[in-house]
Amino acid sequence: MRRHSSVQHVTESFQSQGIMKLLGARIARLRRGLVEVSAPNRCELSQQDGFVHAGVLATLLDTAGGYAVLSLLPRGSRVLAVEFKINFTKPAIGDTVRATGKVRKLGRRLAICELEAKMRDRGKWVSCAWGSQTVYCIRPDGSND
Amino acid sequence: MRRHSSVQHVTESFQSQGIMKLLGARIARLRRGLVEVSAPNRCELSQQDGFVHAGVLATLLDTAGGYAVLSLLPRGSRVLAVEFKINFTKPAIGDTVRATGKVRKLGRRLAICELEAKMRDRGKWVSCAWGSQTVYCIRPDGSND
Amino acid sequence: MRRHSSVQHVTESFQSQGIMKLLGARIARLRRGLVEVSAPNRCELSQQDGFVHAGVLATLLDTAGGYAVLSLLPRGSRVLAVEFKINFTKPAIGDTVRATGKVRKLGRRLAICELEAKMRDRGKWVSCAWGSQTVYCIRPDGSND
Amino acid sequence: MRRHSSVQHVTESFQSQGIMKLLGARIARLRRGLVEVSAPNRCELSQQDGFVHAGVLATLLDTAGGYAVLSLLPRGSRVLAVEFKINFTKPAIGDTVRATGKVRKLGRRLAICELEAKMRDRGKWVSCAWGSQTVYCIRPDGSND
Repeated sequence: MRRHSSVQHVTESFQSQGIMKLLGARIARLRRGLVEVSAPNRCELSQQDGFVHAGVLATLLDTAGGYAVLSLLPRGSRVLAVEFKINFTKPAIGDTVRATGKVRKLGRRLAICELEAKMRDRGKWVSCAWGSQTVYCIRPDGSND
Repeated sequence: MRRHSSVQHVTESFQSQGIMKLLGARIARLRRGLVEVSAPNRCELSQQDGFVHAGVLATLLDTAGGYAVLSLLPRGSRVLAVEFKINFTKPAIGDTVRATGKVRKLGRRLAICELEAKMRDRGKWVSCAWGSQTVYCIRPDGSND
Repeated sequence: MRRHSSVQHVTESFQSQGIMKLLGARIARLRRGLVEVSAPNRCELSQQDGFVHAGVLATLLDTAGGYAVLSLLPRGSRVLAVEFKINFTKPAIGDTVRATGKVRKLGRRLAICELEAKMRDRGKWVSCAWGSQTVYCIRPDGSND
Repeated sequence: MRRHSSVQHVTESFQSQGIMKLLGARIARLRRGLVEVSAPNRCELSQQDGFVHAGVLATLLDTAGGYAVLSLLPRGSRVLAVEFKINFTKPAIGDTVRATGKVRKLGRRLAICELEAKMRDRGKWVSCAWGSQTVYCIRPDGSND
């Protein structure tokens, strides 16, 4: 019987991402098909107006989506971003960023995720980015074929 | 006569982006309608396989595209990312990342950019990400209207 | 007091789209911020494998999203597609196509919609396309400014 | 030796698309990795302002990109749209639409195309839509694996 990627598997992979450490990000929630990544806001994450940079949101979202997919795959699987598209709907202001990736469709080799980033601003979570992502799944042991 | 955003304007704005400093990025080329941003690769930019994280590419690309637009706007203008979509075409391996933003269409309030990221791998530049971006232009003094 | 686009306004605009007639499409549901467009499947809508062509789905989705936005704008407003991005998640097989556009964010000049197309296949609605759209809003009487 | 999809293969597949006939479209140019599809403008292709509907442009572009990929694949291959994202940069006005799909990256299972639509308006070709597409390649005989 194939077992799916354990929490441990996803967590270990997350910790091996240098960029997550650089951004101060951590996994805030992890269940099968849904991952949330959060980071405290600080001026090192900002663009020129002091908002969190769109690319930082994209980075957290890409990671959240990728691991949401990985959480549904057999152990030993790998995931790669094919593409993502993100709309930025509000300036990213607040003390904490939270990026959520949710699997909408899991195929043999391709998965589609919905991505959404929120900021906690004065205690309230406000959506500031929303989009979609295609993820390529590399399953172990030739199980792709 | 309206003057366009000077090199100095773009450069100062770039330096105010905390995330560019965090990523070790600098403007490598700046002409009207085209900006290149580059950064040395290091393990702090990596995802789990050691490649440069897709989100880092997106961050540099978003900045390059935004400033490519700003370079065409009157002084005192501001730019905001509406959305971007990026395809990741090769693993980002090499010693240097270079992200290019080029304006394809400049309208009164919206501009469209082409984005492309390359990695220098053993002396050769290899394309690893390519996409498009919509930028909202806030022109000064009610000149939008 | 500004009144919003009436049902009549959206319906009249829909009927002026030559392509909706060509595709045999009609508005199946219309409420503020959400529009559904449907069309019976027939071989004139097909791609080479007999599925409904991705572009036909995109056409119905773009119209649904545009009118979902228009339904929230003051009378006399117009809408234009800035961009859309659609993932095709299943082959579009069945007797009826239904495309839904739902406004997720309405700004002064830009609105963001979520788009989803479903096919009715042997009595069951199956999702086959999903994506996002940016719409430019032209409000009447300089009310944009 | 594997032969690539012949002109004949692409042409036959094109002719089996019901929607191309409905839109009055034909292949205007076909070489390996690049396909142009064109259609005369007429009011059946219009949206509410009389411009060619964004979805019609998307339909022609999706077909052009798909066949640009197919033209590079071994005989007996099939292609499916994974996703596309298109920016609409000008109102589509003129007597003829021309949609070009060009392969930017061909992988084993995924290909990325650049898409651009132009309108011939008073004798001059004007770009009105531009974007990207991901195509899934199904190669014959288990040659995918």
